[in-house]
Amino acid sequence: MQIIKSVTEMQNISQKLNGKIGFVPTMGFLHEGHLSLVKEAHKKCDFVIVSIFVNPSQFLPNEDLDSYPRNFEQDVKLLSDIDFIFFPQNEDIYPNDYKTWITVEKISAEFCGKSRPTHFKGVATIVCKLLNIVNADFLFLGEKDFQQLVVLKQMTKDLNFKTEVIGCPIVREKSGLALSSRNKYLSEIERKNALSLFEALQLAKINFKNGIVDSQKNISQMQRLIEEKGGVVDYIEIIDSQNLEKISKLKERCRVLIAVFIDKTRLIDNIEI
Amino acid sequence: MQIIKSVTEMQNISQKLNGKIGFVPTMGFLHEGHLSLVKEAHKKCDFVIVSIFVNPSQFLPNEDLDSYPRNFEQDVKLLSDIDFIFFPQNEDIYPNDYKTWITVEKISAEFCGKSRPTHFKGVATIVCKLLNIVNADFLFLGEKDFQQLVVLKQMTKDLNFKTEVIGCPIVREKSGLALSSRNKYLSEIERKNALSLFEALQLAKINFKNGIVDSQKNISQMQRLIEEKGGVVDYIEIIDSQNLEKISKLKERCRVLIAVFIDKTRLIDNIEI
Repeated sequence: MQIIKSVTEMQNISQKLNGKIGFVPTMGFLHEGHLSLVKEAHKKCDFVIVSIFVNPSQFLPNEDLDSYPRNFEQDVKLLSDIDFIFFPQNEDIYPNDYKTWITVEKISAEFCGKSRPTHFKGVATIVCKLLNIVNADFLFLGEKDFQQLVVLKQMTKDLNFKTEVIGCPIVREKSGLALSSRNKYLSEIERKNALSLFEALQLAKINFKNGIVDSQKNISQMQRLIEEKGGVVDYIEIIDSQNLEKISKLKERCRVLIAVFIDKTRLIDNIEI
Repeated sequence: MQIIKSVTEMQNISQKLNGKIGFVPTMGFLHEGHLSLVKEAHKKCDFVIVSIFVNPSQFLPNEDLDSYPRNFEQDVKLLSDIDFIFFPQNEDIYPNDYKTWITVEKISAEFCGKSRPTHFKGVATIVCKLLNIVNADFLFLGEKDFQQLVVLKQMTKDLNFKTEVIGCPIVREKSGLALSSRNKYLSEIERKNALSLFEALQLAKINFKNGIVDSQKNISQMQRLIEEKGGVVDYIEIIDSQNLEKISKLKERCRVLIAVFIDKTRLIDNIEI
């Protein structure tokens, strides 16, 4: 495994690799969720490249860019079986005269986009750049950031990237809590309260089995459950998995998306019905 | 030479070409200006691909999308010595659910961007798509659309395309008129009046040699010359070639940009001092 810091060097290497390149973009502080993506990449590809870059353009000014957890040494250990870690510097990715931004209209403005209005512009732009730098044939993304997955599938399709996007299932703790680097922010009590996200999603699944399909009714019940455990709901939405449109009744293979503040920590989760 | 209409087929072919790919994007109705780009591409590259696509997203609603001149049969004859003509259909390039747009900030809003506010968004987006479809190593662009050249250099650099952008000199008629597909709109009298663009640019060059370097003075003189020949100035700007910033005095290697309406036809031209 090689650690590459230079954009030019990474691009020169990736252009010459003879085989399928699998790419996993991360912001570091890796957990089993990231590693499940790496595992999928190994299965499908000849070369695996993981980027570690805390992308400033996807954080809003009031968000946790500075405190976002980092542990490069541990990340390197966890990635010993891949081919390249791409670990660029901010000034190399966004030089002073940087001017180009990618917008995926409509689907970027919904859900997380409402409370994080420029977030997906930052995400789409950095991923476009990284795809070009690492010359990716396959892009592996977790389903936890479901809207991000849909935005990036749309972006790569619309801009005719050769890259195929592979969505991988959410990895959870035994408790049900979805793995996230931001779980590190949680105190012991908050960690318990945060279980309400998964419990609420399970509730929707059980409701569906019992014929309670009205979206608004489900949303109200989920909200009550989360609030009882001290969470503050940012949104709960029941949507068609394909086009992200809100639906009034639960149906097979629809998605329930939630974003909840546990004190100051904003967590997201989702489930397929 | 092969004509490829399908996006998927073009992308499959370009991914497998073994050698440097030179790409010339055009809206068809080719003239010697386009052919000079093809010639440059032949010199530098193993394969030459020319796209012919009248890109609707770079036209404003009130512009000449429908009347834009087309002559595919003649274009094909002129391109007999290249490898591939990429001639896609609009619904393949912008399917119904299309959502992704590229903005190059600041430099897109100046000059032509003032009277054509969404123009460069359309240009940047289509060229990004085409670069991915044809897998371009080199992109050949004419200097007549000088702002477009600067915007696309910025876009490819910012988004880390492997593609190198090559700007090629303006090709002119003997009269001095810069070649443009839109010259077809001009009546015989308008064609004569349109010579005022080149004459005005020459005036700035002569002024510089004679030590008349004040930008505003030059602009006023050029404007007067153009108006005397019946043109209506959209803008005349004197700028630094590198960063497109307006400068108050002419200097070596600066650029003078002009856009002029000759009756309903909007023509652009520029010169390096």
